[in-house]
Amino acid sequence: MSKARLEAFSDGVIAVAITLLALDLTVPEPGHGELLTQLGDHWPQFAAYAVSFFTIGIIWVNHHARVSLIVVVDRTLLFLNLVLLLFVVLIPFATATMATYLTGGGEESHIAMAVYAVVLEGMALSFTAMFEWSLVEGRTLVSVPLAQRRNARVRASIGTLVYAAVFAVAFISAPLALALAGVTAVYYVFAPVPHIGIEAEVDQLTSGPL
Amino acid sequence: MSKARLEAFSDGVIAVAITLLALDLTVPEPGHGELLTQLGDHWPQFAAYAVSFFTIGIIWVNHHARVSLIVVVDRTLLFLNLVLLLFVVLIPFATATMATYLTGGGEESHIAMAVYAVVLEGMALSFTAMFEWSLVEGRTLVSVPLAQRRNARVRASIGTLVYAAVFAVAFISAPLALALAGVTAVYYVFAPVPHIGIEAEVDQLTSGPL
Amino acid sequence: MSKARLEAFSDGVIAVAITLLALDLTVPEPGHGELLTQLGDHWPQFAAYAVSFFTIGIIWVNHHARVSLIVVVDRTLLFLNLVLLLFVVLIPFATATMATYLTGGGEESHIAMAVYAVVLEGMALSFTAMFEWSLVEGRTLVSVPLAQRRNARVRASIGTLVYAAVFAVAFISAPLALALAGVTAVYYVFAPVPHIGIEAEVDQLTSGPL
Amino acid sequence: MSKARLEAFSDGVIAVAITLLALDLTVPEPGHGELLTQLGDHWPQFAAYAVSFFTIGIIWVNHHARVSLIVVVDRTLLFLNLVLLLFVVLIPFATATMATYLTGGGEESHIAMAVYAVVLEGMALSFTAMFEWSLVEGRTLVSVPLAQRRNARVRASIGTLVYAAVFAVAFISAPLALALAGVTAVYYVFAPVPHIGIEAEVDQLTSGPL
Repeated sequence: MSKARLEAFSDGVIAVAITLLALDLTVPEPGHGELLTQLGDHWPQFAAYAVSFFTIGIIWVNHHARVSLIVVVDRTLLFLNLVLLLFVVLIPFATATMATYLTGGGEESHIAMAVYAVVLEGMALSFTAMFEWSLVEGRTLVSVPLAQRRNARVRASIGTLVYAAVFAVAFISAPLALALAGVTAVYYVFAPVPHIGIEAEVDQLTSGPL
Repeated sequence: MSKARLEAFSDGVIAVAITLLALDLTVPEPGHGELLTQLGDHWPQFAAYAVSFFTIGIIWVNHHARVSLIVVVDRTLLFLNLVLLLFVVLIPFATATMATYLTGGGEESHIAMAVYAVVLEGMALSFTAMFEWSLVEGRTLVSVPLAQRRNARVRASIGTLVYAAVFAVAFISAPLALALAGVTAVYYVFAPVPHIGIEAEVDQLTSGPL
Repeated sequence: MSKARLEAFSDGVIAVAITLLALDLTVPEPGHGELLTQLGDHWPQFAAYAVSFFTIGIIWVNHHARVSLIVVVDRTLLFLNLVLLLFVVLIPFATATMATYLTGGGEESHIAMAVYAVVLEGMALSFTAMFEWSLVEGRTLVSVPLAQRRNARVRASIGTLVYAAVFAVAFISAPLALALAGVTAVYYVFAPVPHIGIEAEVDQLTSGPL
Repeated sequence: MSKARLEAFSDGVIAVAITLLALDLTVPEPGHGELLTQLGDHWPQFAAYAVSFFTIGIIWVNHHARVSLIVVVDRTLLFLNLVLLLFVVLIPFATATMATYLTGGGEESHIAMAVYAVVLEGMALSFTAMFEWSLVEGRTLVSVPLAQRRNARVRASIGTLVYAAVFAVAFISAPLALALAGVTAVYYVFAPVPHIGIEAEVDQLTSGPL
């Protein structure tokens, strides 16, 4: 099993999932009121689209960063990767459900947002499992020194903590939980590399023109 | 015809098909009862999604493992590959039909699950045909020794037997047949390589860092 | 503009279009009669799916065979390629329309099939234009000798004649026209290479293990 | 982060988005009047499809031309690229909304077209930002000489001016604004390379067989 095709397949699945997010943006039919008002009433769909778009974008970036260091592809990695993709593919569904109930308030909005958080948590846990798999000696181009492993583990599993927090906040206020997920996504895009994984050390070895 | 583009096209089609599986996960509209209850009532959709996801994932892994050894691309291979993809692309439709009728019981649930089994059987038979094509001397990097061919053939055609069994069980109980398909998919992910094909012998020749 | 990315983009678009064909296969809801009867009544959808699947598959094969010989990528080629893809992306829509009206008989079935033929003709004409562009000296790895160009042109434009015939037959019988398109697609898969283009001569130069 | 996977992911997203444009082409059901008349009444859908198809096609060409010169991939580029893709993925939704209201006339048609223009403007601004990022010394294979930067900037930002004009014209006549967007797309396909960016100078360095 070549790593190139693992990357190509994952890229394909993630690219389709991120694009299907927009299928939930419904076109208001003529005759249901002012177009601008209608589009305004659909703001949860647009906010949910943006948050999920960057969330999937970030997992793509992190997936790439980690897989690019891997030198051995075995059945366990393939399985973990499939589980990760299974959750990524669920995101458009979870996003649509969450956006539909977001502003309704009450119990239903809490549950819809909690379902969304569960799917993101599943994605984060799968990624953490892939990361953990990759820490075993000889599976990556450059190993993480033992002394730094605990640190690396904590950094790689920040996502699992964030989405647990999103889950908890969902039962206080669904829009607040969405805002938390959105801030996280944007933060991760700009986060200095050391905060995301162990790539910082590795970058020094592999940096230079592509 | 380069093999690289055959792989890229197949990866693309399989990636889109696996992602379209999630389109059948419908978002319950507000006002039709408790959200959690509704999501619970849709468990056949989620179970069917998971089984089909891993089934397509496995065929992708096996497709890749076999094609990576091929050194000659002719029109027959292209045709067999197209037939395989034709069945893969039918899986989201077959999955949706099966999930809709799964818990209805009676004749309809049996037929819906049988249709699902027929599509998976078509996929398995196409793959077996591709495998058989690849056994001819000179078509792969490393040939299967004559003495081991019968063994390799049996291993490669296990899928056709499993889906025939799923077809038969469909007429006893649709959920049981789905469970059988699911167990098979998970089993194959973890199955030791020799049980899937003849890659075991070949791996010894091509193993090492990617 | 590198050829690799032109191929990757075209592969992506064609892969998505061929997979979207299956979206027209509708799942019969429970309570509308026997499932088997309903699936049987949808035979035009399944026949149309199979014909369009192989038609897109063939254009992918031919696109690949021709582009693999090209050594210069200019704006005209990009434009012709976009026009080709524009028609390919229309095929799922044209297939769905045609399948819906196929067995209704009368004027509507003729028009629906004629629309399908027009889209396929647009695809064939775009491909012929790309082929013609590639005949200019220096644009391909191996040029077609002047003496053989007329021959090559005829072969490359067979598709445009076939789909013109499908258009004409549409006004006699829509199912007959679909059968003609289907036979053509299967024939092309198995056709000896010389009948499709000029690849035969070129193959002698580039043949060997990939 | 390798550039190859940035390109592959972007190609995937753009390919899916361009293909989803056709999902808005609805199949008229039998019994709602003459098929030809119905298809004729849907001309805004077809015109909008063609314009958006070439618009996405052009941004793909320009994206490719610019990224192919880049030699450094950092977090800022990844973020800018994600923002660009976010707008590209919105185009099928904006196209469908615009086509639905195009011929209705009055306020609604102006607003629907203005929304379309805003999405295209967002795409153009993101691309301009990526271009600006790439002008910094050492980020591309070949730098733009200081004396030519102002010129290069003007050329690269033509799109942002055009879509601002489309926005303005939307409030006079929606069909006229669509025609302007369409003429722009076709013009760009054929525009001599120097009018699009600074690739002209670079081409002299990298030209030759692919």
